Amino acid sequence: MVPRYTRPVMAAIWAPENRYRIWFEIEALACEAMADYGAIPKEAARTIRTNGDAAMAAFSDADIARIDEIEATTRHDVIAFLTWLAEKVGPDSRFVHLGMTSSDVLDTCFSVQLKQAADLLLEDLDMLLAALRARAFEHKYTLTIGRSHAIHAEPTSFGLKLAGHYAEFARNRERLVAARAEIATCAISGAVGTFAHVDPRVETFVAERLGLAAEPVSTQVIPRDRHAAFFCTLAVIASGIERLATEVRHLQRSEVREAEEFFHPGQKGSSAMPHKRNPVLSENLTGLARLVRSHAIPALENVALWHERDISHSSVERNIGPDATIGLDFALARLSGMMEKLVVYPEQMLANMESLGGVVHSGEVLLALARSGISREDAYRIVQHNAMATWTNLGKPGGRTFRENLDADPDVAGRVPADVLDAAFDARMHLGALDHVFTRVFGEAGPAA
Amino acid sequence: MVPRYTRPVMAAIWAPENRYRIWFEIEALACEAMADYGAIPKEAARTIRTNGDAAMAAFSDADIARIDEIEATTRHDVIAFLTWLAEKVGPDSRFVHLGMTSSDVLDTCFSVQLKQAADLLLEDLDMLLAALRARAFEHKYTLTIGRSHAIHAEPTSFGLKLAGHYAEFARNRERLVAARAEIATCAISGAVGTFAHVDPRVETFVAERLGLAAEPVSTQVIPRDRHAAFFCTLAVIASGIERLATEVRHLQRSEVREAEEFFHPGQKGSSAMPHKRNPVLSENLTGLARLVRSHAIPALENVALWHERDISHSSVERNIGPDATIGLDFALARLSGMMEKLVVYPEQMLANMESLGGVVHSGEVLLALARSGISREDAYRIVQHNAMATWTNLGKPGGRTFRENLDADPDVAGRVPADVLDAAFDARMHLGALDHVFTRVFGEAGPAA
Amino acid sequence: MVPRYTRPVMAAIWAPENRYRIWFEIEALACEAMADYGAIPKEAARTIRTNGDAAMAAFSDADIARIDEIEATTRHDVIAFLTWLAEKVGPDSRFVHLGMTSSDVLDTCFSVQLKQAADLLLEDLDMLLAALRARAFEHKYTLTIGRSHAIHAEPTSFGLKLAGHYAEFARNRERLVAARAEIATCAISGAVGTFAHVDPRVETFVAERLGLAAEPVSTQVIPRDRHAAFFCTLAVIASGIERLATEVRHLQRSEVREAEEFFHPGQKGSSAMPHKRNPVLSENLTGLARLVRSHAIPALENVALWHERDISHSSVERNIGPDATIGLDFALARLSGMMEKLVVYPEQMLANMESLGGVVHSGEVLLALARSGISREDAYRIVQHNAMATWTNLGKPGGRTFRENLDADPDVAGRVPADVLDAAFDARMHLGALDHVFTRVFGEAGPAA
Amino acid sequence: MVPRYTRPVMAAIWAPENRYRIWFEIEALACEAMADYGAIPKEAARTIRTNGDAAMAAFSDADIARIDEIEATTRHDVIAFLTWLAEKVGPDSRFVHLGMTSSDVLDTCFSVQLKQAADLLLEDLDMLLAALRARAFEHKYTLTIGRSHAIHAEPTSFGLKLAGHYAEFARNRERLVAARAEIATCAISGAVGTFAHVDPRVETFVAERLGLAAEPVSTQVIPRDRHAAFFCTLAVIASGIERLATEVRHLQRSEVREAEEFFHPGQKGSSAMPHKRNPVLSENLTGLARLVRSHAIPALENVALWHERDISHSSVERNIGPDATIGLDFALARLSGMMEKLVVYPEQMLANMESLGGVVHSGEVLLALARSGISREDAYRIVQHNAMATWTNLGKPGGRTFRENLDADPDVAGRVPADVLDAAFDARMHLGALDHVFTRVFGEAGPAA
Repeated sequence: MVPRYTRPVMAAIWAPENRYRIWFEIEALACEAMADYGAIPKEAARTIRTNGDAAMAAFSDADIARIDEIEATTRHDVIAFLTWLAEKVGPDSRFVHLGMTSSDVLDTCFSVQLKQAADLLLEDLDMLLAALRARAFEHKYTLTIGRSHAIHAEPTSFGLKLAGHYAEFARNRERLVAARAEIATCAISGAVGTFAHVDPRVETFVAERLGLAAEPVSTQVIPRDRHAAFFCTLAVIASGIERLATEVRHLQRSEVREAEEFFHPGQKGSSAMPHKRNPVLSENLTGLARLVRSHAIPALENVALWHERDISHSSVERNIGPDATIGLDFALARLSGMMEKLVVYPEQMLANMESLGGVVHSGEVLLALARSGISREDAYRIVQHNAMATWTNLGKPGGRTFRENLDADPDVAGRVPADVLDAAFDARMHLGALDHVFTRVFGEAGPAA
Repeated sequence: MVPRYTRPVMAAIWAPENRYRIWFEIEALACEAMADYGAIPKEAARTIRTNGDAAMAAFSDADIARIDEIEATTRHDVIAFLTWLAEKVGPDSRFVHLGMTSSDVLDTCFSVQLKQAADLLLEDLDMLLAALRARAFEHKYTLTIGRSHAIHAEPTSFGLKLAGHYAEFARNRERLVAARAEIATCAISGAVGTFAHVDPRVETFVAERLGLAAEPVSTQVIPRDRHAAFFCTLAVIASGIERLATEVRHLQRSEVREAEEFFHPGQKGSSAMPHKRNPVLSENLTGLARLVRSHAIPALENVALWHERDISHSSVERNIGPDATIGLDFALARLSGMMEKLVVYPEQMLANMESLGGVVHSGEVLLALARSGISREDAYRIVQHNAMATWTNLGKPGGRTFRENLDADPDVAGRVPADVLDAAFDARMHLGALDHVFTRVFGEAGPAA
Repeated sequence: MVPRYTRPVMAAIWAPENRYRIWFEIEALACEAMADYGAIPKEAARTIRTNGDAAMAAFSDADIARIDEIEATTRHDVIAFLTWLAEKVGPDSRFVHLGMTSSDVLDTCFSVQLKQAADLLLEDLDMLLAALRARAFEHKYTLTIGRSHAIHAEPTSFGLKLAGHYAEFARNRERLVAARAEIATCAISGAVGTFAHVDPRVETFVAERLGLAAEPVSTQVIPRDRHAAFFCTLAVIASGIERLATEVRHLQRSEVREAEEFFHPGQKGSSAMPHKRNPVLSENLTGLARLVRSHAIPALENVALWHERDISHSSVERNIGPDATIGLDFALARLSGMMEKLVVYPEQMLANMESLGGVVHSGEVLLALARSGISREDAYRIVQHNAMATWTNLGKPGGRTFRENLDADPDVAGRVPADVLDAAFDARMHLGALDHVFTRVFGEAGPAA
Repeated sequence: MVPRYTRPVMAAIWAPENRYRIWFEIEALACEAMADYGAIPKEAARTIRTNGDAAMAAFSDADIARIDEIEATTRHDVIAFLTWLAEKVGPDSRFVHLGMTSSDVLDTCFSVQLKQAADLLLEDLDMLLAALRARAFEHKYTLTIGRSHAIHAEPTSFGLKLAGHYAEFARNRERLVAARAEIATCAISGAVGTFAHVDPRVETFVAERLGLAAEPVSTQVIPRDRHAAFFCTLAVIASGIERLATEVRHLQRSEVREAEEFFHPGQKGSSAMPHKRNPVLSENLTGLARLVRSHAIPALENVALWHERDISHSSVERNIGPDATIGLDFALARLSGMMEKLVVYPEQMLANMESLGGVVHSGEVLLALARSGISREDAYRIVQHNAMATWTNLGKPGGRTFRENLDADPDVAGRVPADVLDAAFDARMHLGALDHVFTRVFGEAGPAA
């Protein structure tokens, strides 16, 4: 992920320093476990811990350079690290990594990093949920037109729209919690997962200390269906971001103007057109969603590793591990800020709602007619006729509103009393179930209008 | 999905008859709910139920043709169905679908169909799990070589391999249970989800009767993040199928021949080469996995519908709904049968395991050397030297086994006693943790060897 | 692809009858080639041709059933067909398929089918191009607002918009011609492509008669990079369909209403809202584009077949072969009709263009100011100030148009003469390069305004 | 793309310095064009060129920091660059970018970068083609077993296998040449592509100087179908890499060992198993192929920008532009080196070929039997019977070779003379068409065996 779309807090999880820190922790914990049951001297485990902790505390770019230098010869990253560690730990380093295989370290480390990333993403989601909740209650009674097919349908409330996005991100949060559990496992089972040279107690010990579950069956590696499920979950969340971003892009378009992203003083919308205020954040989020979504495919292709493992997954994960989590973290943080500061124009919402001459109230009129005793087909025909007449002459001289057309139609006037029509044309009738829905979503209806 | 890869039991879920049956059930239940709280006459609800049930009981291709005929004019499938229903129900049909919108029916029906499909897939998974469990216990102590990078690594057991696949499909079962819950929701909330013309009690009633949850916020439609999560789950399962299929394809290759798909009498492997017995089932499963996986992408793209809904998701779902579930059902059923009948060759497994002159036992030798007091680097150098000498001269005149080379190397012989080497070369040492792993996976270790 | 999105003319290409017809043609041609150079008796080749042609002329569902019946035993489709053919041809059938392998027939047949499909798609593209060309010239001088970020930018012409889509589909046509050439190859090279049992002259002969190129190196199969490139091309075309469909969906939205899909008499937009006229065709096209696009992924995954071939590609292609071509054919045909009949509202385009108080003319004002000698930064600041003032008070009492604001600003009035401003506010200034662009795209500028 | 998989030469194309250099070149050329036809003073164009060239020659990290600093305020990258350029050029900078829009610069620059990247990739392909050609001729007559379904089929030559990969990459080269032409276009057409404020002669001039074609219709942006086609082409090439990498992975597996990646002295295959020599390069290439392939999806999703453009494509392209080209460049370079140095074991190839008791010669035996006058079905039955007998008893005491079984079968011995069987069992019969194929692929057959 390019720096432009990277927050330092997530980037730090994927920095070499964090990786080496986790590698050391795994090795040190494994030594402590082995010392526990007498496989290696307790004194050695203590030395490894003490000297290693000191080395990690003093860890600098020089250490990274040294490890890289060793890897240039060994062409193996874990062996390079262990060689460096031996230089720091001294002779007791011969007890490090005993009976383990590289993947024990690499895969367990990747689990820790993904767990750290998931924790950060959960924080992001909480921020976003808080923003959406606040704006949903703020606009619970803000009338706006609901649209299907981008055509005016019936009135709704802007708060209800936001409640829907809140509910989606609440689901996304649950999915991420499940996905975090998917990848939070530890494998220290040796070359092909048989524990031939390392006691299962090591795995149990390390897993517990790192807040991971022990992987039931690892085959040198942690099975990649877990990671596939994780990246698919990120893809689902990204798609939710795209949905909300798309909504804002629509609301901000020149002909709609019901809401706008906050426009910073000094910001320039266009090098040629000074009047432009563009929904660039939500457009950017749309693109980021495409990126994060695309990472699901190689993650799925990574599942079918050959036999007990091949290493084809590695280059994929070295990229999509950081890219997907950094991209999603950035997008969620950007979306939170955008929704917090979103400028909403309730008057414009009302104006748009009424701009079609009142045909958006046709649904209730249809029901009123049906209740008057005629068939649904006849009612539909009458309402459509009047709606079309309104629509066709909208804004033209002599064009009548839907209500005026209905009042002039004996098929209607003779059947539906004026006060029933009045009620059908009162947009507030669409707000009646808000308490019901808000309670379902937020656990409370909030203050009355 | 072409008929070749279709099982009738899953196809029936997606047949027009099942769809219309569910549509009617939703409409009839909604009427009963409305009658309950007095919105429509109780007698009307009863008539609708009685006449509708009769019509559905007598439902035939002629009814489908009639509905198609109406749709050719109305260009709207739900209206066409309601018109047909009115012909069957009589005048009380004017109480059907009151205050509802087409998506109330369409989306809730899709939920029911996906739930039915998920139930069938869960049965498939149970069959597969049973087959894998049986074969895993059968081969718990069948020694075979573990391979990383498709290179011999260390011995393992064939049962342990199968236990790993069992564990993956057990996870897939859990994921599918979660995915089933994702899509098992009901929405009857009207044109833009405000319940303006239909009481929330209708939704609650219908949901309960159909075994669904009420959708917290629907916006004419059930939000598509649910379906995206569902199809992503199918993609993860498909990838697990590919992993097991790939394993079998490898095991059956001419040079390995450790297992083979059952070969039917009369089956012809090739029109030109009569000796061929090809792993066509597992290859076929590999292709089916690609198909099912590909459906995740449009499902994710479906999430960002415009405003309260657009209908772009519909053409996608009309295809991937059946295709993904039919394809996965067929694949799981095929895989179950294939694993049940898989022909396993334990002697060939042993022969392959020993074919590299014993270098596969190098890991334990390395540890034995390290335990003798020399540094890990020195131990590694000594072992690699002897392993490479074995490897290079494998099968050549004068080529020695790994054990012979070690015995001839004073760096080894002086440090590691013969009985320790004997133990290191006994493949059964790799089976020691089987009980531990089997108990984690299956809840029991099974009978001793 | 479900029948709803299937045109019979494309479905026929993928029907069993067409496949068997092509299989027979390949076998018959191969026999004629072998007879030519004396590998089999000329009389046998004639008998095979005569009896086979008769059998194909009389081909019916009963033949398909018979072939299926044989395949149920042999589990091999080509052998089943050859057995059926032998029943029709008689003893000379022993000269059929001599030295060939199933893939020689299957792959060459798939090439013929894809070529037939590509020809139909090229016809579809020609229809679409004709429709776009006609509408582009019709609306060459129809002023409309150009939008970036869905925000009004500067005036353009509706014909220019359409010219852009024409140019894209003209590129798509070129891509499809190239993709057709990619897959139009013939392989008759035997079990692993060595021509061990079949003379290369057979391949040359059959290729020429079928209008195919001989595949330079086949390895039992035609290499799948060709098919991957083909399906990727369909995905690119599908994305172009989505772009145009998205444009129409935007133009039809209630607040824009610059164009509408043709609405059939009798069509019902909504079961609840009789006034609705929804852009259902373009929404449907958006969904179909997602489907066709999704087929690119498994086609790409099909490339890396194992060794000289495995059969994992087969189940993929049995589905995406028909699905992608049928889906794209349907979508292109639908799009052609939609664009032919698209209802365009030039007055609404003008009204929308002027709805922002004239700020859409700010670009030329900026240049006029810059030409007056002040720095670009100062000019930008002055223009943005006035544009923002216009924007902020748009539609409010006392709100002034952009021109009024400029006229009242001494920074402008003192620098730019009124006639220069008049010219800057004349939208026709944006039409000056139309002849240049139309000539590039269509080869002619067309009649003057 | 992480540094581990990045070659500096490709990274340089995507470095900020190169981007700014191209931006300046576009602006300077545009000024020169405008000066040509008198839109701005010739002297100004000269000053801009001279001062700008000097600034770019002295360009350093300090300049990047300055531009970043300005962008922090303006939030617009092109305006930030122009402001920096003004600081360097002086007052004549007011003639820079006159009548142009940011995308004129951004999109044309992206075209130049992609063209540079394509040129590098073409060089990579040429290196790879040279390596494949050399190895193909080297091993033209190296016998090896051809495999379908990973089951031994018939003999072929290792050179023929490589020729097939050569032919695929030759096609990939042609595709890349076409894809390079797709994206090598220039757009300088203003805010919505109407050339309202900039003369088309500017575009023509700049395009010619940069070696680009003028974009027929741009709509502020160059249409993204071009880029989609470009990234799809990279995905097809990546899939070809995967195919060759998969072949090598198979050949190197322990049971096959027909070829091996070169193993560097000092390289460690495993931290636990010193004997391991793993095909890590080809496994790595498999993963990189997944990555590059995944970029096609967001590129396709980028096509349907809204109206004259939205900016959702930008974040996608900022990532996949570098990632896909850097990843593919690295992969191609790695693959070239790998194939150059691939260690081939012809003796092992022969040994494997004969390891199935000769059943791989069954195809020619079948034909010989068929030629003897019996039906194909009978011939097939006889051959399959003997092949199965061979197969079943392979390696068992008393197991006979296929030839021995045939010799003992009166159905064969009575029909096919021994010398005909001898010929059928001579693997060299499979090499007869090599000259034909090599001439098709390489334009020459090469020296005789």
